[in-house]
Amino acid sequence: MAERSVGARTWALPSRPVIAGAANAAGRKEGEGPLKDTFDAVCPDDTFGQSSWEKSESEMQRLALTGALARAGISPERLSALFAGDLLNQCIGSSFAARTLGAPYLGLYGACSTMGEALTLAALTVDGGYGDWAAAAASSHFCTAERQYRTPLEYGCQRPPTTQWTVTGAGAVVLAREGKGPRVTHVTPGRVVDLGITDTNNMGAAMAPAAHDTLSAHFQDTGRSPADYDLILTGDLGDLGRQLLLELFARDGVDLSPNCTDCGLLIYDRERQDVHCGGSGCGCSAAVFTGHILRGMAAGRWRRVLFCPTGALHSPTSALQGESIPGICHAVALEAPGREEEDHGVS
Amino acid sequence: MAERSVGARTWALPSRPVIAGAANAAGRKEGEGPLKDTFDAVCPDDTFGQSSWEKSESEMQRLALTGALARAGISPERLSALFAGDLLNQCIGSSFAARTLGAPYLGLYGACSTMGEALTLAALTVDGGYGDWAAAAASSHFCTAERQYRTPLEYGCQRPPTTQWTVTGAGAVVLAREGKGPRVTHVTPGRVVDLGITDTNNMGAAMAPAAHDTLSAHFQDTGRSPADYDLILTGDLGDLGRQLLLELFARDGVDLSPNCTDCGLLIYDRERQDVHCGGSGCGCSAAVFTGHILRGMAAGRWRRVLFCPTGALHSPTSALQGESIPGICHAVALEAPGREEEDHGVS
Repeated sequence: MAERSVGARTWALPSRPVIAGAANAAGRKEGEGPLKDTFDAVCPDDTFGQSSWEKSESEMQRLALTGALARAGISPERLSALFAGDLLNQCIGSSFAARTLGAPYLGLYGACSTMGEALTLAALTVDGGYGDWAAAAASSHFCTAERQYRTPLEYGCQRPPTTQWTVTGAGAVVLAREGKGPRVTHVTPGRVVDLGITDTNNMGAAMAPAAHDTLSAHFQDTGRSPADYDLILTGDLGDLGRQLLLELFARDGVDLSPNCTDCGLLIYDRERQDVHCGGSGCGCSAAVFTGHILRGMAAGRWRRVLFCPTGALHSPTSALQGESIPGICHAVALEAPGREEEDHGVS
Repeated sequence: MAERSVGARTWALPSRPVIAGAANAAGRKEGEGPLKDTFDAVCPDDTFGQSSWEKSESEMQRLALTGALARAGISPERLSALFAGDLLNQCIGSSFAARTLGAPYLGLYGACSTMGEALTLAALTVDGGYGDWAAAAASSHFCTAERQYRTPLEYGCQRPPTTQWTVTGAGAVVLAREGKGPRVTHVTPGRVVDLGITDTNNMGAAMAPAAHDTLSAHFQDTGRSPADYDLILTGDLGDLGRQLLLELFARDGVDLSPNCTDCGLLIYDRERQDVHCGGSGCGCSAAVFTGHILRGMAAGRWRRVLFCPTGALHSPTSALQGESIPGICHAVALEAPGREEEDHGVS
């Protein structure tokens, strides 16, 4: 195998690309939740000053990207590549945001795993020597997702208890070859895993097996165990999906519970905000990672983090045709500055 | 800039990844066209034995992938990554094909530029040392595209003369570090270019400025001129888009006409097959590249080829909201074995 492959599925990144800048933006409900102080911009009416929800989502992603670029101290033209995606048909949230920037654009579709996929490919671009800077971004918007995937907002549909609430949020990161932020040390791209779940109101159950698959591969490839991470953060399995993930690992004799949580459980107050199983959407893990997590790493709260966004790769059409829901999970290992010695033993 | 960047936007690939295997599949109309002998599989009723058009498209992409893997002589588990995409909402053509393979999967959305984006990222994965094999695939299906983007097939809508015909086709490539096939020497990822075209029945006009932008960057970055290529092959600009591209280059004092053609013009007999401006869809450039082009390179017809799939990054929703159509084009430079000496002077 090539020198940067570790085990069957993990890539070690010898240059350890640095998060040189990150930013996010979120909607009103997210701005009223427990992570409200970790968002760079909160729009009180979720419109971001635009005339349609789709344009609002695109503007929100643009805000996150320009914020991340400003913190990295570079203009968009200096990006070697921008990797971005969202949940909208034909990914218009991202392509219209990219239109304003003029950077080389590689559009992604990874459903709610998109921020993990984008970080993986941006890190590979920088680590491989294909430029000094690359960006990763993802977004979702409650109002665009509801009308595209479910029913018009005006219907006020009831939701079963297993559902999650699509986050209005976006996050963006600029990776660089040099700098002082947290570093990406390893990535484990996911494969499509489908255990036959067909209930589109229970995405957590559909995605948990993919998270189990990718995390297991990551631990096996790197020789690390869950205890080697201060935080293992899945994308948006929500409450039910997280329980299933813990159960799958328990069957392997591994206790994942002490340091594993989920972006979908962090972003809302489930007692007070009526979101059933928690948050979801590409913007959930993107906004939580670029706010709460990176701020926590900067403050020394967590040194080594495994960020594992999960996605459900179905569509309304595939669901109507009776197909089950394939899941995917991409894992990105990060390290705050100051643990160089330990890392080198592993990679 | 990093060592693998050439100029502002092009990446040189020092290891020159090899096309170790390629395959395609196509529908009846394509199988009756001038490239009929270059398809590995043609399905006479376009169903590929499936019960819905979406499942047919997925099966067609799976056929292309398994064919490419067989020719490369590897099992899917040995792939370091599979990059794939299609035109369907949430890219279910690709994710359901990937579900059958078990390889790490990175889903893309690049509209009809997808094969260029997938080849770019697969080449980067192999060249960067992140594994010995990576795959690229893309597909489109006339029947899934018509009902998703336009009107139900049964309506038999009339089409204006500027329209193109969505190709029922799929193509897949396996790239490797070592081997005897054509090599990928450079890639120039595209940026989003939008000159304000709003007519969704005239995609060629929307995409031509993006092709002009990427090709110009490629020539400037590499110091090459159009004459350095035996063939410059755009994705699916069609007849009108190609004329506009030639006009844009003519304004720069560059005559692109002698060695430039378009996949959308090659795949059908426009006199006989009633396709107006030509073919389109992710599957158009994917099926033409993996058949006609790679066979021609193997036969010595072309030594140096610049493959430039183009995409229109809009959606039905963005069109209804009055948005213009952003275009993108990714350029991939290939070299048949035997011109090593000349290359090394350039990269």
